[in-house]
Order: sequence, then structure tokens, then C-alpha cells
Amino acid sequence: MIRIGIYGYGNLGRGVECAVAQNPDMKVVGVFTRRPPEKVKTFGAPVFSADDAIKMKDDIDVMILCGGSATDLPVQTPMLANHFNVVDSFDTHARIPEHYDAVNEVATKSGKTAIISVGWDPGLFSLNRMYAGAVLVDGADYTFWGKGVSQGHSDAIRRVEGVADGKQYTVPVEEALKSVRSGSAPELTTRQKHERICYVVAKEGADKARIEKEIKSMPNYFADYDTTVNFITQEELDRDHSGIPHGGFVIRSGKTGKNLENSHIIEYSLKLDSNPEFTASVIVAYARAAVKLNSSGQIGCKTVLDVPPAYLSPLSPEELRKTLL
Amino acid sequence: MIRIGIYGYGNLGRGVECAVAQNPDMKVVGVFTRRPPEKVKTFGAPVFSADDAIKMKDDIDVMILCGGSATDLPVQTPMLANHFNVVDSFDTHARIPEHYDAVNEVATKSGKTAIISVGWDPGLFSLNRMYAGAVLVDGADYTFWGKGVSQGHSDAIRRVEGVADGKQYTVPVEEALKSVRSGSAPELTTRQKHERICYVVAKEGADKARIEKEIKSMPNYFADYDTTVNFITQEELDRDHSGIPHGGFVIRSGKTGKNLENSHIIEYSLKLDSNPEFTASVIVAYARAAVKLNSSGQIGCKTVLDVPPAYLSPLSPEELRKTLL
Repeated sequence: MIRIGIYGYGNLGRGVECAVAQNPDMKVVGVFTRRPPEKVKTFGAPVFSADDAIKMKDDIDVMILCGGSATDLPVQTPMLANHFNVVDSFDTHARIPEHYDAVNEVATKSGKTAIISVGWDPGLFSLNRMYAGAVLVDGADYTFWGKGVSQGHSDAIRRVEGVADGKQYTVPVEEALKSVRSGSAPELTTRQKHERICYVVAKEGADKARIEKEIKSMPNYFADYDTTVNFITQEELDRDHSGIPHGGFVIRSGKTGKNLENSHIIEYSLKLDSNPEFTASVIVAYARAAVKLNSSGQIGCKTVLDVPPAYLSPLSPEELRKTLL
Repeated sequence: MIRIGIYGYGNLGRGVECAVAQNPDMKVVGVFTRRPPEKVKTFGAPVFSADDAIKMKDDIDVMILCGGSATDLPVQTPMLANHFNVVDSFDTHARIPEHYDAVNEVATKSGKTAIISVGWDPGLFSLNRMYAGAVLVDGADYTFWGKGVSQGHSDAIRRVEGVADGKQYTVPVEEALKSVRSGSAPELTTRQKHERICYVVAKEGADKARIEKEIKSMPNYFADYDTTVNFITQEELDRDHSGIPHGGFVIRSGKTGKNLENSHIIEYSLKLDSNPEFTASVIVAYARAAVKLNSSGQIGCKTVLDVPPAYLSPLSPEELRKTLL
């Protein structure tokens, strides 16, 4: 039985608790929170103060970190890797090398195994970029996200004056997908790849034309995209847009042959009803891998690119060869 | 520079020679053939007798076996794993455990690394079944093949009396793909998943009605499928059906959440102009991995499920983390 700790209990932490329940070889020993423990309601897992985590280190085989990448994980992952095998979902792509170094230093000294940046991007999408690129050497890679809710862009909408609530969907442009799948290896601008669709609840009496203009011209977030702003009521937002769906596509097209005369397309796609629950399911599989890596002496920091696929499964290598190959 | 040997030189061997040319960290040292070497025309690689392979063992880092699964590989892979790191594409799914055991015994003793059953199915498709199944524990797996040429079924057509030549395409049924992608986890019969489309050149004066009936009722090959037989001329067959395209889909749908209320779809697909060249490209990436595994002391028999993804790439772990995660 793999004993799991959950450090942080928001959408992702809840997803981890549910995912562990789907895996008969695991159980959640405790949820660790910085809030008053009595205020955190889980699906059944006992709740402890984050301050008590280290005291419980002998009861936990792997700690799953469910904090945010901006300020939580850069501090928490190295801190906890000193005492636990850990898995996190650090997803600030540009800062992964730096996070890796910080975690690797601690985990190498403590003899623990840390797997960072687990989820679907970074995570399963990274794996697919890796495999496809190694196989089709002469080719081009494309990653599309959506259709899905972007938390960051939804937050940006809600910061606009006069906005009561709002949600933003990132949507891949069908035309771009089609041209990538044709193998023509197009060069695509930001605008050609994704569009942004916003559902906005305006405060009473707010100037909708100004809100729309302000959203559409927001640098980094919306200005480089074709953005659609739909004004709806709070009731409509709650009824039709309360989910957290996401997904996307990793496509590589490449050429082979004496004169590179043959074309190939490798496509990987996800269509997810719940982004945090799916991310949690990926993390839980890698939690199993972290324990196996550690038992076989593979310590320090790892990413999905380092982990032998079979380590994710509860099945034995024999069973996997028999049923999956 | 990774020094590659190619053992057997048909479509796959030619594909391997081309694929190695696309990878600047590798070169082909020699092609080894059971035919008279002077009769084998390569794209430039020197040709030797298969009998001379073992004499050249110090010049070769990894031997890629390009023989068939029925009779060649069960003998050749263990034989050569006694002297070389090897990669093969053994694809008789049901006999993989037995092949693994035979190769593992030899490679463990010789201190070499063997990776068997490399390609796309078994191979990349197996990996996707592995990852998707580990992530979406409560779910169902579907593998569809095609649209593509099946060598075995084409051979079966050509054995029918009165047939001069022929080619068979395996085609996934669009309706079945759609229902799998909906997340409804349907149970599908053989007939519901794939149809078979045959292009047949009849000998002069042959009874086409009898040929069609004989093909459609052939047990194992065609009887369980909706099969279409199209009679065409040899010129048309040569003009329109000389390629070896293939591909397929691995789709897993699964549920997550407290009450399994959320649905997710993971889909992987390949669309290949040349089945042997793509298979060769996968094998060549795993040849690099075989050399890395061996240098780090990981000997014996492996499959794609055992190999850390990063081992396939010529890039360093640092570069991979920076560019792919």
C-alpha cells in the first residue's frame, strides 16, 4: 500500500484525493493545509496542519504538492524533498531548469526522489514532444491548447473595471489544425493558432463597450489574439460555464526516405471535462513511480522524461508485456 | 558517433539506412545479408555476409535486426544478443513474453542490452496504452489500425486462384471512432471496428464472382469483416496502390471525480506515408537508447515500456528540460 500525503487542498488537492481512491494500491494518509485544519472539508481524508507534515514523515511514502507555481512550489518542493519523496506540478515552463536544480540539490542530499512538473503540459504533452521529435527528426512540432478554461485569462478579465465575473476559453483555430495535419509544416502566428472567447458579467450600469475594448486590447493576454467578448448574466455564467474543461493537441509532422519524400503525422490529443482532476490522475501515477524509483536507488530530481513508463503502473513488467505490447 | 549494423536488408533495412542518415550522431557501419553481398544494392552502406557479422563485433555499437517475426527474429535476436547490443521489431504480440525470455537470458549473460518489439504497434501504440491506462484507471482502451496496407491480407488475396495481384487496406469504421471519442465506452465487435477494402487484379478469363466470394468468405482474414472487393487492372494497381501507407488510433476514455462524474479522452494517432520507414525511424531512436542503457550498466532485455524517454534523444537532459517540458 503506497501511503500518500497531500500538501495543499484546492481543486488539485481534491482531484488527488479522488484519484487515489481509484487506485487500490494507494491510500491518502493525510491532507496538510496552511488553513485551520478544522475548516478544510475533504472527501474523507484526515486533515493536519502543514506545520505537522514533517513529524509524519515515517508514515508517508510520497508527498504530493498541490500548491501554485508562482510562489508555493519554488519554496515547498525543495523544503519537503528534504524529508519526503515528492511529486509536484510546477508549470512555469521558463523556470523549470532553475526549479529542477533547487529540488535536485536537496533530494540528492536527502536520498529522496522528486518528480517535478507533472501533469499534461508540462507532462504528457512534453512526453509526446519528446517521443515524436526523437522519431521524426526532420519535422516540425505544434502544440495547441483548448478548447478550455484558462485560469490566468479569466482572472485578467475579472480585474477589468466594471466586470463582476467572467470566464475565458482558449480555442485552437480549426484552420490551423487542418493545415498542420496536412503535413505542410506551416509557420503560424499567435493569432493564427488560437482564439480567445470571453463570457463576461458586467456590473450594473457599467459601460460594456469600454469593457469589451479594454479586454480586447490587453497586452500579452488578448491583444495578439482574435478575441470575442460575450456579455451574459451571472445566472448564465453559473449555469453554462462552471466546469473546468481543457485539452489540446500536440502534433508533429515529419519526413523520411532517401530524399525525404514520405510524410508522417503523429498526433496526440486530450479532451478533458476537468483539468484539475485529470492533472491529479497523472500526478498520482507518477507518485507510484516516485516510490519505485526511490526503492531502486534512483534518487534526486526527475521529470516525466526520465521515468521509465512501466514505473507508472501497478502491474508487473511481465503482466505489462503480456497485455500492452 | 554511434556505429550501427543492419542485419537483413528488405524494406525495413532500407528504412533504417535512410533513418540513420537523418541522425548526425550515427552512422551505418555495415549491412549484413544472407544473400550474396554483391547482389544487395544499398544507398551507400557497405554490404557484408551475415556470416561475417560476429567478426565485426568491435566495430558496431548496436545491431538493428530487420528480419521477419515468423522465423528470423526468434533465432537471430538471441543469437546476436550474445555479441551485440540489439534492437528488433518482433511483432507477433502473443509470442512477445516467450521472445523476451529467450533474449533476456542471452543478453543478461553476455552483458549486452537488447530492446525488442520496437516500432509503432508494438511500440509507440503500446506506450500510449501504457500511459493512458495508468492515468485513467477507470476506462476503456481502443486500438484501431489504418487506413493502411496489410501485408498479410494482401498475401492472402494473392493466394486465391485466378488472382494475378492484389492489395488490401484495413480501414477503421468512422462510426466506431466517433462513438469511442464520445466517451460512451461502447463494446464493439470486430466487424464494427474495421472494414477491409481489396483491390484485385484478376487473371485473364478468371471468374470474378467466384474470386470475390472466396475472398469475402475467407475465415480469420475477411469473413468477420465488411469486405469490399474492387477489380482493377495491373496498371491501375501499380499506379494507385504502390505505396505502403499505414497508421491508426489508440484511444482511451475514462472517468474521474468523487462519483466518476467527469469524462476524459486521450487520443493518439499516426498517419504514415511509409510504414517501414516510420517503423525504422522508431527503431533508430531506440538504437540510441540501447547504447545509452548499456553504457549505464542496464543490460538484459528491455521493451519500450522500460526505456526512459530521454534516452531516445541525442540532446542532453538539461537541453530536454529547457526545450521540451
